[in-house]
Amino acid sequence: MVAEAVINSGDTAWILISTALVMLMTLPGLALFYGGMSKNKNVLNTMFLSLAGFAIACVVWVIYGYQFTFGASIGGFIGAPTNFFLSGIGVDTVLTDGTIPELLYVVFQATFAAITVALISGAVVGRMKAKAWLVFVVLWVSLVYVPVAHWVWGGGWLAELGALDFAGGAVVHLNSGIAALALISVLGKRKDTRLLPHNLGYSVIGAALLWFGWFGFNGGSALAADGLAANAFITTNTAAAMAMIAWMLIDIYKTGKPSVLGAITGAVAGLVAITPAAGFVDVPAALIIGFTTSFVSYFGISYLKPRFGYDDALDAFGVHGLSGTWGAILTGVFASPAINEASGLLYGNANQLVIQIISIVAVAVYSYIVTWVIAKVLDSTMGIRVDEQTEIEGLDANEHEEVGYRI
Amino acid sequence: MVAEAVINSGDTAWILISTALVMLMTLPGLALFYGGMSKNKNVLNTMFLSLAGFAIACVVWVIYGYQFTFGASIGGFIGAPTNFFLSGIGVDTVLTDGTIPELLYVVFQATFAAITVALISGAVVGRMKAKAWLVFVVLWVSLVYVPVAHWVWGGGWLAELGALDFAGGAVVHLNSGIAALALISVLGKRKDTRLLPHNLGYSVIGAALLWFGWFGFNGGSALAADGLAANAFITTNTAAAMAMIAWMLIDIYKTGKPSVLGAITGAVAGLVAITPAAGFVDVPAALIIGFTTSFVSYFGISYLKPRFGYDDALDAFGVHGLSGTWGAILTGVFASPAINEASGLLYGNANQLVIQIISIVAVAVYSYIVTWVIAKVLDSTMGIRVDEQTEIEGLDANEHEEVGYRI
Amino acid sequence: MVAEAVINSGDTAWILISTALVMLMTLPGLALFYGGMSKNKNVLNTMFLSLAGFAIACVVWVIYGYQFTFGASIGGFIGAPTNFFLSGIGVDTVLTDGTIPELLYVVFQATFAAITVALISGAVVGRMKAKAWLVFVVLWVSLVYVPVAHWVWGGGWLAELGALDFAGGAVVHLNSGIAALALISVLGKRKDTRLLPHNLGYSVIGAALLWFGWFGFNGGSALAADGLAANAFITTNTAAAMAMIAWMLIDIYKTGKPSVLGAITGAVAGLVAITPAAGFVDVPAALIIGFTTSFVSYFGISYLKPRFGYDDALDAFGVHGLSGTWGAILTGVFASPAINEASGLLYGNANQLVIQIISIVAVAVYSYIVTWVIAKVLDSTMGIRVDEQTEIEGLDANEHEEVGYRI
Repeated sequence: MVAEAVINSGDTAWILISTALVMLMTLPGLALFYGGMSKNKNVLNTMFLSLAGFAIACVVWVIYGYQFTFGASIGGFIGAPTNFFLSGIGVDTVLTDGTIPELLYVVFQATFAAITVALISGAVVGRMKAKAWLVFVVLWVSLVYVPVAHWVWGGGWLAELGALDFAGGAVVHLNSGIAALALISVLGKRKDTRLLPHNLGYSVIGAALLWFGWFGFNGGSALAADGLAANAFITTNTAAAMAMIAWMLIDIYKTGKPSVLGAITGAVAGLVAITPAAGFVDVPAALIIGFTTSFVSYFGISYLKPRFGYDDALDAFGVHGLSGTWGAILTGVFASPAINEASGLLYGNANQLVIQIISIVAVAVYSYIVTWVIAKVLDSTMGIRVDEQTEIEGLDANEHEEVGYRI
Repeated sequence: MVAEAVINSGDTAWILISTALVMLMTLPGLALFYGGMSKNKNVLNTMFLSLAGFAIACVVWVIYGYQFTFGASIGGFIGAPTNFFLSGIGVDTVLTDGTIPELLYVVFQATFAAITVALISGAVVGRMKAKAWLVFVVLWVSLVYVPVAHWVWGGGWLAELGALDFAGGAVVHLNSGIAALALISVLGKRKDTRLLPHNLGYSVIGAALLWFGWFGFNGGSALAADGLAANAFITTNTAAAMAMIAWMLIDIYKTGKPSVLGAITGAVAGLVAITPAAGFVDVPAALIIGFTTSFVSYFGISYLKPRFGYDDALDAFGVHGLSGTWGAILTGVFASPAINEASGLLYGNANQLVIQIISIVAVAVYSYIVTWVIAKVLDSTMGIRVDEQTEIEGLDANEHEEVGYRI
Repeated sequence: MVAEAVINSGDTAWILISTALVMLMTLPGLALFYGGMSKNKNVLNTMFLSLAGFAIACVVWVIYGYQFTFGASIGGFIGAPTNFFLSGIGVDTVLTDGTIPELLYVVFQATFAAITVALISGAVVGRMKAKAWLVFVVLWVSLVYVPVAHWVWGGGWLAELGALDFAGGAVVHLNSGIAALALISVLGKRKDTRLLPHNLGYSVIGAALLWFGWFGFNGGSALAADGLAANAFITTNTAAAMAMIAWMLIDIYKTGKPSVLGAITGAVAGLVAITPAAGFVDVPAALIIGFTTSFVSYFGISYLKPRFGYDDALDAFGVHGLSGTWGAILTGVFASPAINEASGLLYGNANQLVIQIISIVAVAVYSYIVTWVIAKVLDSTMGIRVDEQTEIEGLDANEHEEVGYRI
């Protein structure tokens, strides 16, 4: 206890930069995770969607995205940009607490925007035009990600309301998962909707890299090198491990055998579910969040998806949408005043749970509607779906004129 | 020299967190390293063993592993837990020197436990039941890793004796290598014991990721951002590079050609051998440790393994057991008072070498016996070996009902 | 502004170590990037060239490379070593500003030397003897890299002249690109010079890992945890993203389709071009540098290469040589006094542009001539080119007696 002042010292807040760096590992992580689960004929296109989405979002972010997100709030809905191209933010500009260069914070936030839009791609693989995706990314980051991030993190109305979202349960995962649903509702189903991973080893490595990179998102969101960041690290690691175990147990109960796809899907679901909670809950709560979220995503993938017939190809909604929602709800239950300045239902504050549900509904409704409109507009102009021949032969050959393997 | 106080400043000790993070890269590293060397039909199972072992160990660690390892010593053999589920360790709890949040230290130590048990899997691939492995991990971490880590790092009897083990020569590598031997002595040999790597490129990338992640283990073990950590970094990098060169030279001498498998095996052997020494020896010693350890592991893999006929499939014992032992011995030779508060034989303290050998023997004997008992108990209850049909067809298809490649 | 003193505090300069670590990710990154683009029969050899080059350079560096580079300058051309094997550099030795352990700086610089020589390998794959490469690495690091690094970073004549090279536009990329040209001029063309990537997914992941690792080179080169490092991060990320977008636009304009190979080549070209500039220019300049450099490298690969008929197999010259040169030139244009203590043409200092061109010409001429001499000497002694049979059957089978895939 004595040394609390020391470990909260401003200097080391700068250590955030290393976590901002680590977040970048989610880019190869996601490309491998999705790429391995794709069909052989679509592996390059699948990786391309992540990579190109990431790059475009980063450029949008420095031109105007950051300014609209973090400018002074206009009625709680959007930030008022004072300028563009980051002009006015110099090498000596620091955030208000005086310990973090603002340019560092900009690139840290850029990776959130970039990975969020990349996550959506998991739902649309196998049938979306590459060029339509490039345009979609620009519009979606601008019209969906930026406002939602402003609401929750930029001082907007959900922040005012007191919604808790430590590292993106609503902003990143629920948002991308719901957007995935909206986009595929316009895009339609593939001819062959079976999940036949062509290189599951890729996905295993991808999941491990995501695990690594997630430490950047969740640990970095403490915006300080202190005990809270340490709490975020250990709850993140614990929830991922526990969720992997839970999914293995479900698999063993259902089929007698732990599937590798199930194990890694569980790990990612655990990472997603702990994301909004990492800086608000303790380790026992992380174990519960991790354990339960695998049941939620398993239910979504095994029952909801076939029941409602949507073609969420690589389960962007099933994993990110559902586990993100579940984590956001449980944050309202398990948020502990011993960890941070917020209390959930378990600590006598039922109000927090209500606020969490409001934020979930608000983000989901907004994300679905605006994404659907974007998709419709694109579909009626440039078209968003490849032709049947392209889909059957594969998008690598037709959308890129390349081939994944010459082995 | 002037600035020594500055670079040892408590604040930056917190930088350990980034090294704790980096360690996580050994998870995809190991999965790729082992996965690439496995047979095609077992690639997913091989990766699964690492991943599932890692996850289970992390959960065991936060429930009771950390407490038993680092609680007040009971007779030097085991820590006395004061509580479980990390209760009592809050966000403001710091280690005794007041600079590192204890939760950060817990997750840092968790990755040691997790990677150690994952290392064992390299010996057993191709024939161990997946479910038996899951149970083995729980028992082995609890009954072998936790006591041994307490002896050396938790204030136990080997710590009292003065054994030097900077980042796990005995606790991690010797321990896992010997446990691998014990486990395969119960498990038996595969039908086909040839090493025919199905995707050696995976192993190359895995070795490079291990190299990267190792900086976390060895640099982080300084528990401070100071010159000692810098020394650990450069000795680690130097030993790995030198050992790779040594193995290439052996290959060229023996066959006229440097094999890629040899080069990466050498690199990993160098990383293993420098692990106990990294914070005690200087760069010239690192060159010697790196150069010589490749001969030790080469000898083990090329002569001992065929001579004694044990089926150490991917050389978990040959690399981790032997190079870990060799590094622990040479730490007793090269430990320099100019680097840290310890002197080896070369600096007139023959006693240190004796202590190192005592610690090696103690860890080896304990690890072998307890691992063997665990394996025997599991074998006589749930069985640990797959049936012949499963082995021949591959564990991916039979233990997981999945297929590695659809290419 | 208030907190400038805080964020420049010496303590956190130590954070450089984490960036030094991150740089290591360029090793698996490069192995994957090049390995994926190689032909199937040469995948292991291609990865081996990177890995072995990296290891040998690291050992050369600690034995004498660092001393010759950073010793007191002898006439501006080479450093005067005061000793070898890093003797005299203890754990408490710090750099002159008193915040960074010198051993940390040594290992940070070692990775620059190591990755530079590894970059060259991209030009020579498919036909160079493995053993000749091992000897080439020793000679090239000693006779080319060390002097050039001394000129620019070790207080040599280009440093005296005022050449700007933040993280290696001339020292790393131009240098390796030109050396690649010289080496292949002696080595000759392959029988089959088509670029038929055998596993483009590898290259995608490799590019993403390079992106990640580049943050270490460029961010770390601020040698402090301050706003300048933050500027290097965001300009690096921005240029890479913008260059990827530019290359996609070129592809779409030329063929109607964005190629995946083009997208990742663009990203790497952007990383290369921003390298000399990262700590001198602002974000708008990074957008321009990123956007334009893709046109430069595209022009080199699509027009210069076929026009002059050199066999730059994986475009080491086309990407690193050309974009490195372009970045070095634009640094002389866009260097802003608002970012660092240097002004380019745009800020009224035409002299800087002249200095940049002098440094480019000097490095290019020196690198080409000495590399060519080394190659000629090796060719006339041990021979550097494999025989025709080996080339046709593949280097994996003949130079290493291994096979890339058993899938």
